[in-house]
Amino acid sequence: GRTHILRYFALKWALCFLVGTLTAAAAFVANLGVENVAGVKFVVTSNLMLERRFESAFTVFLASNFLLTMFATALTVYVAPAAAGSGIPEVKAYLNGIVGCIAAVSASLHVGKAGPLVHIGACIASILGQGGSRKYQMTCKWLRYFKNDRDRRDLVTCGAGAGIAGAFRAPVAGVLFALETVSSRWRSALLWRAFFTTAIVAVVLRALIDVCKSGRCGLFGKGGLIMFDVTSGYINYHVVDLPPVITLGVLGGVLGSLYNLFLDKVLRLYNVINGKGQTYKLLLAATVTICTSCCIFGLPWLDACKPCPADSEEACPSIGRSGNFKKFQCQPGEYNDLASLFFNTNDDTIRNLYSSGTDHEFHLSSILLFFLASYFLGIFSYGLALPSGLFVPLILTGAAYGRLVGMLIGSQSTLDHGLFAVLGSAALLGGSMRMTVSVCVVMLELTNNLLMLPLVMLVLIISKTVADAFNANVYDLLVKLKGFPFLEGHAEPYMRQLSVSDVVTGPLQTFSGIEKVGHIVHVLKTTGHNGFPVVDEPPVSDTPELYGLVLRAHLLVLLRKKDFVSSCTASAADASKHFSPDDFAKRGSGKHDRIEDIELTADEMEMFVDLHPFTNTSPYTVVETMSLAKALILFREVGLRHLLVLPKSSKRSPVVGILTRHDFMPEHVLGLHPYLFKSRWK
Amino acid sequence: GRTHILRYFALKWALCFLVGTLTAAAAFVANLGVENVAGVKFVVTSNLMLERRFESAFTVFLASNFLLTMFATALTVYVAPAAAGSGIPEVKAYLNGIVGCIAAVSASLHVGKAGPLVHIGACIASILGQGGSRKYQMTCKWLRYFKNDRDRRDLVTCGAGAGIAGAFRAPVAGVLFALETVSSRWRSALLWRAFFTTAIVAVVLRALIDVCKSGRCGLFGKGGLIMFDVTSGYINYHVVDLPPVITLGVLGGVLGSLYNLFLDKVLRLYNVINGKGQTYKLLLAATVTICTSCCIFGLPWLDACKPCPADSEEACPSIGRSGNFKKFQCQPGEYNDLASLFFNTNDDTIRNLYSSGTDHEFHLSSILLFFLASYFLGIFSYGLALPSGLFVPLILTGAAYGRLVGMLIGSQSTLDHGLFAVLGSAALLGGSMRMTVSVCVVMLELTNNLLMLPLVMLVLIISKTVADAFNANVYDLLVKLKGFPFLEGHAEPYMRQLSVSDVVTGPLQTFSGIEKVGHIVHVLKTTGHNGFPVVDEPPVSDTPELYGLVLRAHLLVLLRKKDFVSSCTASAADASKHFSPDDFAKRGSGKHDRIEDIELTADEMEMFVDLHPFTNTSPYTVVETMSLAKALILFREVGLRHLLVLPKSSKRSPVVGILTRHDFMPEHVLGLHPYLFKSRWK
Repeated sequence: GRTHILRYFALKWALCFLVGTLTAAAAFVANLGVENVAGVKFVVTSNLMLERRFESAFTVFLASNFLLTMFATALTVYVAPAAAGSGIPEVKAYLNGIVGCIAAVSASLHVGKAGPLVHIGACIASILGQGGSRKYQMTCKWLRYFKNDRDRRDLVTCGAGAGIAGAFRAPVAGVLFALETVSSRWRSALLWRAFFTTAIVAVVLRALIDVCKSGRCGLFGKGGLIMFDVTSGYINYHVVDLPPVITLGVLGGVLGSLYNLFLDKVLRLYNVINGKGQTYKLLLAATVTICTSCCIFGLPWLDACKPCPADSEEACPSIGRSGNFKKFQCQPGEYNDLASLFFNTNDDTIRNLYSSGTDHEFHLSSILLFFLASYFLGIFSYGLALPSGLFVPLILTGAAYGRLVGMLIGSQSTLDHGLFAVLGSAALLGGSMRMTVSVCVVMLELTNNLLMLPLVMLVLIISKTVADAFNANVYDLLVKLKGFPFLEGHAEPYMRQLSVSDVVTGPLQTFSGIEKVGHIVHVLKTTGHNGFPVVDEPPVSDTPELYGLVLRAHLLVLLRKKDFVSSCTASAADASKHFSPDDFAKRGSGKHDRIEDIELTADEMEMFVDLHPFTNTSPYTVVETMSLAKALILFREVGLRHLLVLPKSSKRSPVVGILTRHDFMPEHVLGLHPYLFKSRWK
Repeated sequence: GRTHILRYFALKWALCFLVGTLTAAAAFVANLGVENVAGVKFVVTSNLMLERRFESAFTVFLASNFLLTMFATALTVYVAPAAAGSGIPEVKAYLNGIVGCIAAVSASLHVGKAGPLVHIGACIASILGQGGSRKYQMTCKWLRYFKNDRDRRDLVTCGAGAGIAGAFRAPVAGVLFALETVSSRWRSALLWRAFFTTAIVAVVLRALIDVCKSGRCGLFGKGGLIMFDVTSGYINYHVVDLPPVITLGVLGGVLGSLYNLFLDKVLRLYNVINGKGQTYKLLLAATVTICTSCCIFGLPWLDACKPCPADSEEACPSIGRSGNFKKFQCQPGEYNDLASLFFNTNDDTIRNLYSSGTDHEFHLSSILLFFLASYFLGIFSYGLALPSGLFVPLILTGAAYGRLVGMLIGSQSTLDHGLFAVLGSAALLGGSMRMTVSVCVVMLELTNNLLMLPLVMLVLIISKTVADAFNANVYDLLVKLKGFPFLEGHAEPYMRQLSVSDVVTGPLQTFSGIEKVGHIVHVLKTTGHNGFPVVDEPPVSDTPELYGLVLRAHLLVLLRKKDFVSSCTASAADASKHFSPDDFAKRGSGKHDRIEDIELTADEMEMFVDLHPFTNTSPYTVVETMSLAKALILFREVGLRHLLVLPKSSKRSPVVGILTRHDFMPEHVLGLHPYLFKSRWK
């Protein structure tokens, strides 16, 4: 009825509100944690450095990084394996995601907060969409309205967008991120809800930051959520600045695709190592954190000290944990520019690189060294068994790369080096992630300067185009590495040469409208299919007729309830009355019924069950002569899991096959038709 | 082959580049024209006012507005009717769109440039997508690759986005506008191309403005393309500011939905008047322009002069055509604040209202009067037979509304009145257009201040929600008024109660695989269908078998070529060799073949034509028992024009019906099943 619909609507929006609020809270806690933990670490180390007790400083630095890394890895390895990637959405994974993320980022590893926050946002959405976690007795009746795939998927999409919005304080970018990467299908109503969710994130974050203004949040101050201000309000650029910007884009594309290539190789290696056991995971993380700490602490010693600029507004050398002018080993009145980059949190370093009017603050050699170190540290840090993101390391490395190009070009261009750093970040992000629109908006919202939009767009377009010529984007690489059956959005050209009957395989398992229990149990035990066509046969109908599609999950519910009838002709008209919609509600992930768990007596096995009330009578269908490419479009655009194949001629059985995602995968299709390999690119 | 594909790819991007460049040029020319024409008008009038020759000033003002309006209307009425709405995409419509838009906006009518620019962008895209205009001998062989629906639709989508990008210098908003309103289906590749197009617009616009910097563009100066700077760099707002902002949103929603209601009524009235003939169109435009001129010139007299602020940075009273302090009838050292609003171009007025630190510049009564006048002038100006947009009038009216609320709230809120004006614009846009995401980004890109994002989002969400409770958004109203068969994206609830067989109507016209020419001609002449199922019957096949779907357009090509065979059993295996792909390329709009134009002899009518090579053998199909709601999802998501209905039982003919867009329209469905009316909202 109407109240039901209204309640459902209100619930949808309330859940978006909750997802937004909780994700914002998570983002805030993550930032608060990082700023305080990393802050204390840097303050203690810096103070020891000031006293010129360099060995103790290094010991403290190395030990704290090591402990934090081990803590994050242990959390992931022993408590919630899913926090290291996408996986079981549980309260545990959510909490561990935050704590682990704080520890990992505070440990000066070259990993970002954005990835974990996206995961946390999606987790929150998933938990709420399931009506709470059953394991922890946190289910909620009210949320049972939400037991279907599409609503949950939408909510998770909103959650992922909220994660990006929270990580960068960039609500519009969050919406676009969800649009570009997460959702395979998109509707206007979803856009609107995603927008609402990220708006809530922005508002809640702002309110929480207001609370902290009075200084009650420890070291969490201005440096909190990254919001870099390229301080020069008005940026001036002209046609003459195009050649350097284009160069930046082209090189950024090359570097980005190389990044993906290296990352792929390193992750394959790490997968092998991590696969050997939990100890190996810990050992790997330990190795990387020790190397990172040595780099960060050691490399600045190579650098010559610079005298402090006379007209600097900031204290030089810097006091406290952040700042552009780290003293490190230098004499009073001097600063170590490489330490200003290495010996800071990622956020602070990015701010240093982005700030304008600092063209002479850094040596060319420092920037080059920092760029190289950052590039490879980022690649070697991502695959560890701890919550880590790629976004921030790419921004950081890109900023160094941009400055480097700006310095090399020198007086050829009038652009500020801070602007070059911003464009460099865009170039590297475009070259590695290829999500142009959302990356563009992230950069704009980060720097809060729309005037640089055309330049950012140009750089992104060039770097993406260049990088696309070499390899796939980083997400596709990751998905392939994890082995998920990810279906491409477009049909491959060779699919036009095939019809669906060319890829249908295996014996088709169908059920009669009123089917013997024993047969159902046998089929469920011997196949892994999740959907079965239901065909009415005489005497129920005149000729064999397709009745619909029944799901494995629903069959299991029927078997569990044991609502059987004694003969195959008896029509149990009211069978559905014995069930409530809740019985068929989709369970949360990891909570599937299994056929092995259902015990039936021999008598029961001889009985029948009427499938009619539980069958989807409107399955999507294609004729067997349909082109595979067009069937794929239907499959993708409507978001199907099963597609029934009907015969062309009426003389055969009413259904000749069933297509699932697996049947459209290039490996399967090319496995059946290897001669198409050579025409793959035609 | 591969070169073919590469060429096609290059062409796609080159066309996007061209669309972007040309749209940017159009936007630039439109702005240049408006600034100069309206500028000269205001300068002449202001000079006469300074000499206190008020009657002459009024005469000049009225006459110039009248002439400009008549010119724009005459262009639309006599030369290119399509420029007043969407329609025939021709070079003529394109040029008239620009010239007419310049004239209409310069005539101080309350219409905007954005709507016409969207139309112009779409026109450019459509012309290019068709490979030029055949009428003007501007076809281009190269562009023939582009003769299919989808590519053209995509290009037009990019063109529309480019229009918004050009109108507001807001490239990201342009992409989102295309996403939210124009495209019924959206793919990641399209997002990427739309983004490229709007980036080109931004870059070209910037280059053109650079050219004008030296003052070679007449009165086109700072006031050119609207880019309002709410000058206070840092906006401060806290939780206490929420109540006024929420009030603003709620009232904005109410005002916006009322705007739509009034607009609907006025447009219905105007449609009646305009339908009476061309003279009536001119008369209507004349009436509105005279009333508008009287309002603009007359209302400021009601206002008391204000003394110039002592600390103003600007000259007071203003010199030249724009400025915050119009002298109008006042004494030296005083200014008329109402004239500062009325006696300016829309762009300048919006800038005045948005500027911060001007809380005491306007009387409450002036703002109220201006708001009311602007609200109703906007409603009465839109339906005239000249190029006009709704965006700018809504921004303008909303700005006045926001200031009004800000003034009424007074010291309760610490927010700047300029910020209130921005939020007011967002509230009214949200209430009327309901395109939240793109409106939000337009406001951000206009004001170049991302800090107000959360507030803008909040206002938009509230105003849209409130307005949605009352009526549909303004585009839906317009589409309904024009009578286009626009298919809603979602299925109505009652559609779940129907199967597709419930809405299939009329006798189904099918063709045999080898069909008699006379029968084809007869069917084409007696029905208006655009697609026909092709069924193979014995002796071609064993049993009647569905072969595919043939299009009317392709049948016409076959009939025109007269490639007939003499008997129904002869298989003309090489029939397709006589045709080139170009023959079947989709024509531009307005260039359809007609069956009446094809002349066939009686002998030819007795011959046969082999339809097999020209039939689409992979039409999408549904079984007749499919739920109508699910069939609609397939129809919409895959973007179909025809959907074949197959029988459930194999005893009947292999196809039982064909569904088109018309069959899914609520009017048609409810006409067939009137008893569903009462369950419409269930």
